[in-house]
Amino acid sequence: MKVLITGYEPFGGEEINPSLEAVKKLNGKIINGIDVVAEEMPVVWNDIDKKFEEAMVKHKPDAVILVGQAGGRTAIALERVAVNRTMGKDNLGVARDEQAIREDGENSYFSTLPILEMLKAIKEDNIPVYISNTAGLYLCNYIFYAARYYMDKHSLDVPVGFVHIPFIPKQVAAKDRPQNFASMDLSLIVKALEKMVEVLA
Amino acid sequence: MKVLITGYEPFGGEEINPSLEAVKKLNGKIINGIDVVAEEMPVVWNDIDKKFEEAMVKHKPDAVILVGQAGGRTAIALERVAVNRTMGKDNLGVARDEQAIREDGENSYFSTLPILEMLKAIKEDNIPVYISNTAGLYLCNYIFYAARYYMDKHSLDVPVGFVHIPFIPKQVAAKDRPQNFASMDLSLIVKALEKMVEVLA
Amino acid sequence: MKVLITGYEPFGGEEINPSLEAVKKLNGKIINGIDVVAEEMPVVWNDIDKKFEEAMVKHKPDAVILVGQAGGRTAIALERVAVNRTMGKDNLGVARDEQAIREDGENSYFSTLPILEMLKAIKEDNIPVYISNTAGLYLCNYIFYAARYYMDKHSLDVPVGFVHIPFIPKQVAAKDRPQNFASMDLSLIVKALEKMVEVLA
Amino acid sequence: MKVLITGYEPFGGEEINPSLEAVKKLNGKIINGIDVVAEEMPVVWNDIDKKFEEAMVKHKPDAVILVGQAGGRTAIALERVAVNRTMGKDNLGVARDEQAIREDGENSYFSTLPILEMLKAIKEDNIPVYISNTAGLYLCNYIFYAARYYMDKHSLDVPVGFVHIPFIPKQVAAKDRPQNFASMDLSLIVKALEKMVEVLA
Repeated sequence: MKVLITGYEPFGGEEINPSLEAVKKLNGKIINGIDVVAEEMPVVWNDIDKKFEEAMVKHKPDAVILVGQAGGRTAIALERVAVNRTMGKDNLGVARDEQAIREDGENSYFSTLPILEMLKAIKEDNIPVYISNTAGLYLCNYIFYAARYYMDKHSLDVPVGFVHIPFIPKQVAAKDRPQNFASMDLSLIVKALEKMVEVLA
Repeated sequence: MKVLITGYEPFGGEEINPSLEAVKKLNGKIINGIDVVAEEMPVVWNDIDKKFEEAMVKHKPDAVILVGQAGGRTAIALERVAVNRTMGKDNLGVARDEQAIREDGENSYFSTLPILEMLKAIKEDNIPVYISNTAGLYLCNYIFYAARYYMDKHSLDVPVGFVHIPFIPKQVAAKDRPQNFASMDLSLIVKALEKMVEVLA
Repeated sequence: MKVLITGYEPFGGEEINPSLEAVKKLNGKIINGIDVVAEEMPVVWNDIDKKFEEAMVKHKPDAVILVGQAGGRTAIALERVAVNRTMGKDNLGVARDEQAIREDGENSYFSTLPILEMLKAIKEDNIPVYISNTAGLYLCNYIFYAARYYMDKHSLDVPVGFVHIPFIPKQVAAKDRPQNFASMDLSLIVKALEKMVEVLA
Repeated sequence: MKVLITGYEPFGGEEINPSLEAVKKLNGKIINGIDVVAEEMPVVWNDIDKKFEEAMVKHKPDAVILVGQAGGRTAIALERVAVNRTMGKDNLGVARDEQAIREDGENSYFSTLPILEMLKAIKEDNIPVYISNTAGLYLCNYIFYAARYYMDKHSLDVPVGFVHIPFIPKQVAAKDRPQNFASMDLSLIVKALEKMVEVLA
């Protein structure tokens, strides 16, 4: 069994993206017999589809865990739902107004990862975690929606979902007002992702 | 040189107090040639003075770092000032209204730890940290005030100050709404306290 | 033209529900030639469908604005999307786990109110407002979802959407820690709802 | 009996300062037989002393209520204590590092307004209010400290204290992310200040 796990390049003025740091640490690992492969995704509206589809073709994964940074959140956030909408300016300065991601797609798709079991497993490992009802309208929601649509259109029985992670401490330490931003140690984030893979086993 | 570092017993319905967990890990350590000794303090208005004074007599420290939990804060909070006021109900159910800690004390005392240098050292170690202007009116402020008063009254040239620390992840993981509470890994908290000791060297 | 506007009974330990207070003030008003009728909705999973459908049959409205309290929010929140999921314990103590609202419904429905124009109109009136991407999984989301489903199933071209409103000051004034909860004056909330009706004209 | 009430000019990129808006509305009013006079204070380190002292000489007030904006707070904040420290850059771009306000002053002064009675009166009027333990280190704390010092040095038995107030709605409505900032209607702020004057009667 093989799990594809993706992280994003830095955006929003940050020098690093903890999602990328975390998935790099998991790349090539074997967890409970599952091969983990990691790929970096761009924060670019016009490139993200191609990059995701290439990763799918290259790895032919049995499950996909998409990871992204949600600066300011305090806990691992297992996303419940992806909506057919975009908004925001990407790393190339390209802005999207409110528009559909796929004209022929559902209004939204639910995660097909076993998020309730994942919630339980991560919590039992003493890591703050919850289920979130919105992944926003930016590229995190985009890849989540596009991936679910992809599985549907290709009739693939490949569970896929998105998880938002907090800043890591060194990002917050560098801010003017660290008292306004929560963070989580990278080792804990990696451990939470490992738990998610274990639940898939 | 010897540094006394104190932590508190659990309070407010928590099963652990990260300040106690952290100082236990430092007890007996030698950091940059400085001996560190740790003591546990009670969350009890009527016992705290005696316990603190016993620790002073027993250890005769050259500096004192008082540590306490500030649930909900995101970062290490070096406290700037202790005020001559109490408020709140302790672990024995004894409540204090707004009243003075020492009738003949100053309205407030500033920390005599080198908090600006400590801020810099902790930040350089990539740990979120800031200087806070209030330690509240509960026992954390009390011990901070009482310790500064003690040094003054005994004409002791012993730097003393207070540092508030966030919840640790396992406390937040156990809460109903983890998304509402920041946390910081115990290893980072310990590292921040070590940095504070190093600055004293 | 007629607009139906609904508010909820109090829940969650509150003695009042500002959504009900606000819609009562609009009941019977004529705004820019539009008749406004208000109805109270129960915070009861098993009664809400019947009450909503009765209101539809009774009033035959040309548009529907559903209003609910979102304690802790700082601004008027125009909800973008309703999801096909429930969660939480109602005023009768009946709990719903994560389950679908309508087995044959879409995963989610978007608001059919002109929320971008409404955002602009409310903001121009100097009232804090934003577009929210989640109405939660409680009864606010339920009625929003059920109402959109109802219009679809009955092939009604009746715009419908949901707006979350903050606590009002007297709710927060009564709390133990008012410093933790934002509020908005009832007169401003009413004004925002009036603006929404005006946009429909 | 005469009460002097001061507000500040706008700062921090805001076009208005609600403290100034509020005190203007009270200027010239007679509340429970008390004459209220209002004065505007500059957000300028080097001018604030002169302006405050001129106001004292001009009005010879029997009590002084100092008011300032605390953007982001949700409730009226009766400040308990002023500390002998400065920090921050003023409207002229002049920055103060951490330094004493008065070399021969106390470490801090407590408010001499009857803040517990004021808390009660404002709360009974259904306005969110609490007692805050820090007025920061910026000009709000400065005038509070300087005014208390002034009364002490001149042996004046004139109660004086500081109250922080939230943004008003139109400030928040104009922000990029209104969902991140609480506000309070100006009429409520004025009402809270009137209550404070009434308590002095």
